[in-house]
Amino acid sequence: MRSTPSTRRLRRDASARGAHFSRVLGYLRRMSYAALQAHYRTLFQLRHAEAMLGWDEATMMPAGAGPARAEALATLRGLIHERATAPELEDLFAAAEAEGGLDPWQAANLREMKRAWLRETSIPRDLVEAASRAESQSEQAWRVLRSANDWRSFRPLLETVVSLKRETAQALSARLGLSPYDALLDGYEPGARRAAIAPLFEELRAALPPLIERILEKQSRETVLVPPGPFPVERQRWLGAELMSRVGFDWTRGRLDVSHHPFCGGVPTDVRITTRYDEEDFQTALMGVMHETGHAKYEQNLPAAFLEQPVGSARGMSVHESQSLLQEMQICRSREFIELLAPLLEQAFPRAVAREPRAFTPDNLYRLATRVKKDFIRVDADEATYPCHVLLRFEVEEALIDGKLRVADIPDVWDEKMQELLGLSTRGNDRDGCMQDVHWAAGLFGYFPTYTLGALTAAQLFQALTQALPGARDDIRRGEFGGINGWLREHVWSLGSLLETPELVRRATGKDLGTEAFLTHLERRYLE
Amino acid sequence: MRSTPSTRRLRRDASARGAHFSRVLGYLRRMSYAALQAHYRTLFQLRHAEAMLGWDEATMMPAGAGPARAEALATLRGLIHERATAPELEDLFAAAEAEGGLDPWQAANLREMKRAWLRETSIPRDLVEAASRAESQSEQAWRVLRSANDWRSFRPLLETVVSLKRETAQALSARLGLSPYDALLDGYEPGARRAAIAPLFEELRAALPPLIERILEKQSRETVLVPPGPFPVERQRWLGAELMSRVGFDWTRGRLDVSHHPFCGGVPTDVRITTRYDEEDFQTALMGVMHETGHAKYEQNLPAAFLEQPVGSARGMSVHESQSLLQEMQICRSREFIELLAPLLEQAFPRAVAREPRAFTPDNLYRLATRVKKDFIRVDADEATYPCHVLLRFEVEEALIDGKLRVADIPDVWDEKMQELLGLSTRGNDRDGCMQDVHWAAGLFGYFPTYTLGALTAAQLFQALTQALPGARDDIRRGEFGGINGWLREHVWSLGSLLETPELVRRATGKDLGTEAFLTHLERRYLE
Repeated sequence: MRSTPSTRRLRRDASARGAHFSRVLGYLRRMSYAALQAHYRTLFQLRHAEAMLGWDEATMMPAGAGPARAEALATLRGLIHERATAPELEDLFAAAEAEGGLDPWQAANLREMKRAWLRETSIPRDLVEAASRAESQSEQAWRVLRSANDWRSFRPLLETVVSLKRETAQALSARLGLSPYDALLDGYEPGARRAAIAPLFEELRAALPPLIERILEKQSRETVLVPPGPFPVERQRWLGAELMSRVGFDWTRGRLDVSHHPFCGGVPTDVRITTRYDEEDFQTALMGVMHETGHAKYEQNLPAAFLEQPVGSARGMSVHESQSLLQEMQICRSREFIELLAPLLEQAFPRAVAREPRAFTPDNLYRLATRVKKDFIRVDADEATYPCHVLLRFEVEEALIDGKLRVADIPDVWDEKMQELLGLSTRGNDRDGCMQDVHWAAGLFGYFPTYTLGALTAAQLFQALTQALPGARDDIRRGEFGGINGWLREHVWSLGSLLETPELVRRATGKDLGTEAFLTHLERRYLE
Repeated sequence: MRSTPSTRRLRRDASARGAHFSRVLGYLRRMSYAALQAHYRTLFQLRHAEAMLGWDEATMMPAGAGPARAEALATLRGLIHERATAPELEDLFAAAEAEGGLDPWQAANLREMKRAWLRETSIPRDLVEAASRAESQSEQAWRVLRSANDWRSFRPLLETVVSLKRETAQALSARLGLSPYDALLDGYEPGARRAAIAPLFEELRAALPPLIERILEKQSRETVLVPPGPFPVERQRWLGAELMSRVGFDWTRGRLDVSHHPFCGGVPTDVRITTRYDEEDFQTALMGVMHETGHAKYEQNLPAAFLEQPVGSARGMSVHESQSLLQEMQICRSREFIELLAPLLEQAFPRAVAREPRAFTPDNLYRLATRVKKDFIRVDADEATYPCHVLLRFEVEEALIDGKLRVADIPDVWDEKMQELLGLSTRGNDRDGCMQDVHWAAGLFGYFPTYTLGALTAAQLFQALTQALPGARDDIRRGEFGGINGWLREHVWSLGSLLETPELVRRATGKDLGTEAFLTHLERRYLE
């Protein structure tokens, strides 16, 4: 391992003093873990500032303040990057490891520090900057070109992004000892590997298309009334907040606001979630709020003693997504939750309910919350068709990173796979096809799989939870979430990043992540 | 001047190379001002983050997030302090000065950098920390002890604060070459000196008590109806925002929110003002909003090219206060503004106006906005009695810093001076006497005079403005603020910290700061 001048000097001095050598070195070693803790504590607090400025930018900041805020954030991010990649950390890691005697939390903390440092120092500075510029350009162009359905103009920009991303993946691959695609994946879900994911995705690819046909056939015989609005924003906000309280959101350490794109931000002691309201449709915002509340409860219940350290932060993206999907899909779209919800809708929207009471019965509301439709757009998809959108993207992006697919061929491959998976053609409609997501334009490759890993994890956790707590479904109906939250706190939330993801899933559910719980869940909810 | 090891080394190397000496040193010199600019740009952006976290804490943050936010702010402030006091700045200042060739803005920028650096590096670190701890303790105790009217318990805490503040003033005095009290004053209003202030305050001390008697005698013959509420918060907010727009607040670069203590925060590109509403009284919040809008317009119109540099920031506290008082006192409590306001009140509060129309006539509203009352509490005082509160505090605090008054004797002196100035006794009522303000508890000595300097400056600026723009009063009546704002932009706002305060006042008004404009204003408004 490399030494920095200052530690080299310290060591040389110690050595020169002969007899004092081991005592001094021992002292340095005992100091290493404490020094690392202090370093990461400052880093956490700079990220606190970054998170709040980012939240403010999306929710509160007036339009004209944008350029100066961008400068302030860039400076802050520069300081964060400097600290996160500080060369002297390498010696401290080595010294702390050599010392030994760390308890499991401290050891995991050191592992997480090293993981992030290694990643962030693997990519040459000029490559980071070139990629960042290209991604920023292509993302900005995408905002215009997508609406114009203009693939021809977007293609060269995406080609540059993919080419730089392949270089980045190579650089990470060389340092981390992973395949290029795994090196990208690992950035979003530490420990996730294509070799483990691919078989699960193959099972979904085989099971979902026929399952979706059976669901659609069943639902074609049902009538669903769309509840007629208007649903005043203030009443929607009240309803969302009321349900947040009931499912266990801690209002002394969080807020609900409005932003164009809903998100969960802030810090664990102050979780800021957002939504967007449509006065003609209460369901989208309500389920969106419940989704973000799932993320928020995870953040609010991370281990208090380690909040400022890497080990105290949430495990990867798929575990985070599992918590939002467990809240939204497993709990809030369940028949039991809909029965809890129905009387609250009467309180929130008395006029709308009086006008069309049949649209607000639990039966109709449940059919509404579980409607399945084969459609083009991923973000609007239901839980049965959503994985098809992800499978398609996973297959395309791994071929791009492997160099087996050219950017120019994406539209054809997209159309072909969309026909296979959902029977829809996107020929000539790139706006609703391969140009619909911002992810690739912004350089996010290896991110899409975490959505479906999250859905599988949510189903498997909820299955284990209901086996451990047989009364859980009744609890939901009664609006009693103490037991459910207690189980999640014990098996997921309070663990932070102590365990690697596969181990977390194994300990919580008794088995490796699989598709069985998810497919069983779909069959029960949509076919029984 | 001291050299840091790195610049000493650079210079030694340059010297060793003989012939290259002057060329290398010239290069270093040309770089110095640019290096300073870059340094202060980063500092500004860290302060941007600090300002926004502070605003968020006061307006948005949930209660339970406080401790972690305090940690994040402390870390951020630590980084800011480190950069603001960096020892290498001293050499850069010297090199940039030696280079010469700076334009007036650059020269003023360098002067402001040096001023702040010299101040911040004058006080020994252990004294800063001891004072900070003592002030924090005494401020927290004050919150409880003031309500309990418990001077006996508060006294020892204040004694410690005063003793450490005297030490601080001595340290500043030695380095800045100012008397101890001036050294404190200079921290709030650069260039302000007791020798210049004392004669103005003597004039007010002689003129105000008899003037107040005449005003009270006149007002005792008038009837004022207090407009009866309720005034719904949403309508009060609408009215405040409407008037903010009319007087020239730029909503693309600012916001209005609610906080317990009203303030003007944020950054020049994003000014965040706050207020607090009382449904039984619209006037307090409305005039408070106008006051903060005065601060905000100053910030929003600082010189765009220098916003990230010390010279681009607002001049001292008294100039800042002059802008809020010019807006609130000179403009918004004028007869002309009240005529603009009256019809808007009908729009804002139709029910209240319909119930008691006589309370909403321009005549009655004007009498309400210009009511004078001798009372105990400074923050509730009108513009005629307010300077009496400040004179008292100025006389007490200069005697404390000079060592001519013991903390134990404050209540007696307070009572005595309050009787002289306003004919009120505070004997046994320290809650409404010497314990009413947080300032001394928090270690703010030398701050109070800036309130009255601000009032004098506001009157003198408005006098010059109305002489230059004879139609200004009609403009106010018509809600036309382009001319007034243009004059203020030219003579105050766009100058940032280019000029020292006395020079700014002299150039804008043609004379040194005096009491004539303020006393004339009071006579006209309250006695004609």
